[in-house]
Amino acid sequence: MEIQTPDWVKHAVFYQIFPDRFARSKHPQKRILTTARWEDWNAMPTLQGYKGGDLWGVIEQLDYLQELGINAIYFTPIFQSASNHRYHTHDYYTVDPMLGGNAGFRELLDAAHERNIKVVLDGVFNHSSRGFFFFHDVLENGPHSPWVNWFKVHDWPLSAYNGDFPANYEGWDGNRALPVFNHENPEVREYIMEIAEYWIKFGVDGWRLDVPFEIKVPGFWQEFRDRVKAINPDAYIVGEVWTDAREWLDGTQFDGVMNYLFAAPTIAFTAGDRVDIEQVQDRSYHPYPPLFASEYAQKITDVLELYPWEIQLTQLNLLASHDTARLLSIAGGDRASVELATLLLLTFPGAPSIYYGDEVGLPGRLDPDSRRGFPLEANWDREILELHRQLIALRHEYTALRTGKYEVLFAEGTVYVFARTWGEEEVIVAVNVGTEAAHSNFVVSKLRSQPSKLLFGSAEVSWNNEGESHQLDLRLPPRSGCILG
Amino acid sequence: MEIQTPDWVKHAVFYQIFPDRFARSKHPQKRILTTARWEDWNAMPTLQGYKGGDLWGVIEQLDYLQELGINAIYFTPIFQSASNHRYHTHDYYTVDPMLGGNAGFRELLDAAHERNIKVVLDGVFNHSSRGFFFFHDVLENGPHSPWVNWFKVHDWPLSAYNGDFPANYEGWDGNRALPVFNHENPEVREYIMEIAEYWIKFGVDGWRLDVPFEIKVPGFWQEFRDRVKAINPDAYIVGEVWTDAREWLDGTQFDGVMNYLFAAPTIAFTAGDRVDIEQVQDRSYHPYPPLFASEYAQKITDVLELYPWEIQLTQLNLLASHDTARLLSIAGGDRASVELATLLLLTFPGAPSIYYGDEVGLPGRLDPDSRRGFPLEANWDREILELHRQLIALRHEYTALRTGKYEVLFAEGTVYVFARTWGEEEVIVAVNVGTEAAHSNFVVSKLRSQPSKLLFGSAEVSWNNEGESHQLDLRLPPRSGCILG
Repeated sequence: MEIQTPDWVKHAVFYQIFPDRFARSKHPQKRILTTARWEDWNAMPTLQGYKGGDLWGVIEQLDYLQELGINAIYFTPIFQSASNHRYHTHDYYTVDPMLGGNAGFRELLDAAHERNIKVVLDGVFNHSSRGFFFFHDVLENGPHSPWVNWFKVHDWPLSAYNGDFPANYEGWDGNRALPVFNHENPEVREYIMEIAEYWIKFGVDGWRLDVPFEIKVPGFWQEFRDRVKAINPDAYIVGEVWTDAREWLDGTQFDGVMNYLFAAPTIAFTAGDRVDIEQVQDRSYHPYPPLFASEYAQKITDVLELYPWEIQLTQLNLLASHDTARLLSIAGGDRASVELATLLLLTFPGAPSIYYGDEVGLPGRLDPDSRRGFPLEANWDREILELHRQLIALRHEYTALRTGKYEVLFAEGTVYVFARTWGEEEVIVAVNVGTEAAHSNFVVSKLRSQPSKLLFGSAEVSWNNEGESHQLDLRLPPRSGCILG
Repeated sequence: MEIQTPDWVKHAVFYQIFPDRFARSKHPQKRILTTARWEDWNAMPTLQGYKGGDLWGVIEQLDYLQELGINAIYFTPIFQSASNHRYHTHDYYTVDPMLGGNAGFRELLDAAHERNIKVVLDGVFNHSSRGFFFFHDVLENGPHSPWVNWFKVHDWPLSAYNGDFPANYEGWDGNRALPVFNHENPEVREYIMEIAEYWIKFGVDGWRLDVPFEIKVPGFWQEFRDRVKAINPDAYIVGEVWTDAREWLDGTQFDGVMNYLFAAPTIAFTAGDRVDIEQVQDRSYHPYPPLFASEYAQKITDVLELYPWEIQLTQLNLLASHDTARLLSIAGGDRASVELATLLLLTFPGAPSIYYGDEVGLPGRLDPDSRRGFPLEANWDREILELHRQLIALRHEYTALRTGKYEVLFAEGTVYVFARTWGEEEVIVAVNVGTEAAHSNFVVSKLRSQPSKLLFGSAEVSWNNEGESHQLDLRLPPRSGCILG
């Protein structure tokens, strides 16, 4: 079977939006909630508070995103939910009223599509919430409920809210707020498939799937793919799988996964011993211990060998998400770590995904801190923003940076150099993560040209050609990187 | 102000359907629930069990209803709800999936309208349910919820499911399953108004309002009427008010109320000392103690004087509902009580409403027994059904029975006689609730004609005319009634 993934993803730069926190619309809108009773936008977020971001606010920021070079948005959940992150789905067919409801989402989707910006939604299909109608009916009616077999009930009575008693049903990760669906039940399976179809028909460009590895029913994700792609063959299906995801990346299920296997070594390499262990330990990815360039090269080579190339090009690469601390905080505030890692992210095969606010240097330790309100312009880190703009623009300009072959050229000590090549187009990317300037000199046998124009960053570059042998001589300032084209 | 009420109601015969119990469709339909896991249709109902009636089932029974002479349906709630009666609304914009969802309701509404059958929905706007999104958010997020002011929260934490602790919020009738809306909040008010508008735009012909007297915010029901009638001036608004309802029947709010002030004396008169006190005591209506004809006449005259005539014609008259025991059971199984009361119901000004199953002699003590599955044809009481058919047909045939003036002609002992007159059309209705034959002879001065054709029932009728004085001589068998035209 030839693996097919959506072309547009290969050329996409994603922006991950946590809807409650990205933007609150300034223009008047028809709202259900007319008086703001949410937390102060700039105050530290809390686990349960809302800040009132909405989809109209996103519409108002589409100019900003477009200027940044974004052409795809991944929204964490937008469906009606009684949690600020909205992973506790209350209704899969209703966009949360605070966000603007289905009408607001229609507006946003149309506005995004007018700008050729794709929109991918977060699908939470392993579990629902205590308020989700079908579970609520079981909670209210016990064994009388016709929906009993939709969940994994062990015994009666259910105790959904009182921790003094056993929940008596399966909750995700033991959390009684998140009743797990019984996917063995064909009714449940059909119900989920129809949700997926509904929103693809509505016009969304794909699904990011929450904890898809929890659904172990044979054929589930295959059917999901078949039914989604039958409506839109270009729909993007990306799973939240933090580890080796070969099981799902055989071409019959997902087009890619959230690439924490890229994030972890990239952080370990660029932030090194600055990594605040508290922010990363006991997580599903491992951005530590620090890596030398050679170790990083090995990890990257490994991950690139793990999946077919067609899949590599539609991986969702990232440095941070709502599920992690932000890199700036992981690195103890070290801006260079962010710059270096962002350079590696935006030059890697697969679609880079920028977690809202990372581009303006927003810090954030683990949840809830990693979900702050998008900062006021006065508080933006302009250099970090400019770096993002430049790197995204270069990625759009050079096909090689998007779909070109990836070749490690040099990896020693603190210096890591690789090439991206697409036909005649050859680009070299180099970073020096060390705190001292680095002088490297190495033979480059894999390129036809000798890229020496500095497209990004600062470096002293020269080529020494002795017969067939081409030597690149590269002087990189401390904690810096460059792109040569 | 001239009071205006919808003309069609004056000519309507309603049928009250409790959707879970009226009919389960026999034809295949696209269902979410594909394997029946509901209670046996013919078993005694339980407080929490579902029997799986649906709106497609109603469609399949439209022939039956039409042949019966029904031209309007009042549905107890059909919106998504985790209770078999569906008064615990989970979502005001979604028809319950077990009933067929919004698509199934669309089909039903269109099919009903094709037959000139109107459809009135039950609006439960005083309270919602524990699973209703906005309350659920308060339950999940406590004081962090932006929807806190939508309900009447007294203190934290809320205890929605654990009776060992105070609920800490207002529930209807002290029931924590039914959180009461804070109607003082303009957001809530607007939210409810928009629901009302939405379904009127969808095509429903009116709203029956659940416990509307609980909503005491000034102008609430006036605005409700204005907004509903702005969309459809012919929409019917009928309130569930069991007692003197003048407060709401001033022409600016409801077109009528559920006329328990008719039901109570009519039962007390026709069933008399057969009334099983257990089935009626501590209810909001009083079908006891037994009434003699003169007392009944006084009660009926009182109720007819209570409201303007335009309102009288759009009252919703009934003998039983999901909130009462059925008359047959109140009367200890006495079929004649049902026949006599039905005769009085179907000849009274205002729209008669037949509680599903009453027309085939279905018994039922108080809830849950009064909500049985509609009986198999083999178990129908054919005589009671035929009586309904005849009386409904006569009501449709004689304008006088619908909109004619109501005049008590005679009321003594067990015999009650009244006339309905519309221009030249004069109809006399007589009942003898006594267990012995009755011979009455009285002067009739209020009629121009001398109706003596037996349109219904059995009686010996003769008129004695002495000059200007017209005497009606009437012999009625025990426990019987008649209509003369």
